[in-house]
Amino acid sequence: MKRIVVLFVAITAVAGFLAIAPPASGHSDEESAPISEITIPIGYRDWRLISVAHEEGKLNDFRAILGNDTAIRAYRDDKLPFPDGTIIARLAWSYVPSEENDKAFGHQQSFVAGPPTNVQFMVKDSRKYTATGGWGFAQFTGGKPRNEAASKSCFSCHESAKDQDFVFTHYAP
Amino acid sequence: MKRIVVLFVAITAVAGFLAIAPPASGHSDEESAPISEITIPIGYRDWRLISVAHEEGKLNDFRAILGNDTAIRAYRDDKLPFPDGTIIARLAWSYVPSEENDKAFGHQQSFVAGPPTNVQFMVKDSRKYTATGGWGFAQFTGGKPRNEAASKSCFSCHESAKDQDFVFTHYAP
Repeated sequence: MKRIVVLFVAITAVAGFLAIAPPASGHSDEESAPISEITIPIGYRDWRLISVAHEEGKLNDFRAILGNDTAIRAYRDDKLPFPDGTIIARLAWSYVPSEENDKAFGHQQSFVAGPPTNVQFMVKDSRKYTATGGWGFAQFTGGKPRNEAASKSCFSCHESAKDQDFVFTHYAP
Repeated sequence: MKRIVVLFVAITAVAGFLAIAPPASGHSDEESAPISEITIPIGYRDWRLISVAHEEGKLNDFRAILGNDTAIRAYRDDKLPFPDGTIIARLAWSYVPSEENDKAFGHQQSFVAGPPTNVQFMVKDSRKYTATGGWGFAQFTGGKPRNEAASKSCFSCHESAKDQDFVFTHYAP
């Protein structure tokens, strides 16, 4: 929980899926009217790992889902719904083949994280975000928040994970 | 660096690739003569994330590479060779499709971490492991160390990453 401190001010838009997102073609980083004051949590890159994922198709990305202490505690204690204060971060990178790994294996089979694409956050505040299951959603690309139009689909997609308090990701032991 | 403390005694075999491994058919968890005293580091599951990977083929797994504080510091400072005390952990899980994610997307595209397969460690001690580039290698499946015969290939494979101090994984920002 130390080092690599990412500081951000003036975050305007809200959006983002956790471990899930609409096709890349729908992505945009233009700013729009603020619909949340969610900012990039300081030190999120140091958070502990919840799990990993890969999306094929247009997204074609690698994902790591990290959680703050409250999130990790809830996962390990099988505690649902997640308590207020939970923040779950979904980092994503391009899904790229690794020539150097393939060389060691003797054939093509290895894929690694390429350049980062975007980072998404789910913030639990049951009083602030009553309309969206108690969760606020945010996505940032290169530090810039996603626009509002592209954000609308967040909660509607996460609603299918209602039985898991709207969170798709399961803890990987 | 707290919680989920994994304690081990009587570790006998040494082995393992980091972010790379021979075909699953070559795996075995039978114990053999001790060739290292590497044990599973306490609290490694709480270590910070270095990167993620996926191996196709017989391995067909998802990987998360975590590092202890010394490892993370070296990565972020671009410090090579890694200093003594560095430990890099490679966790692996089965690579499985996620029906619930696919349902939210409306089509098949999502893969997540299934049951854990094994965990591997690279331990830097330039005096103890002079014959293998300063690294000790170890793999554990269900807490049991890998047998010696299957371990021989570790360093010979990692030798191809000599320019990166025998470590395949790059840091994912």
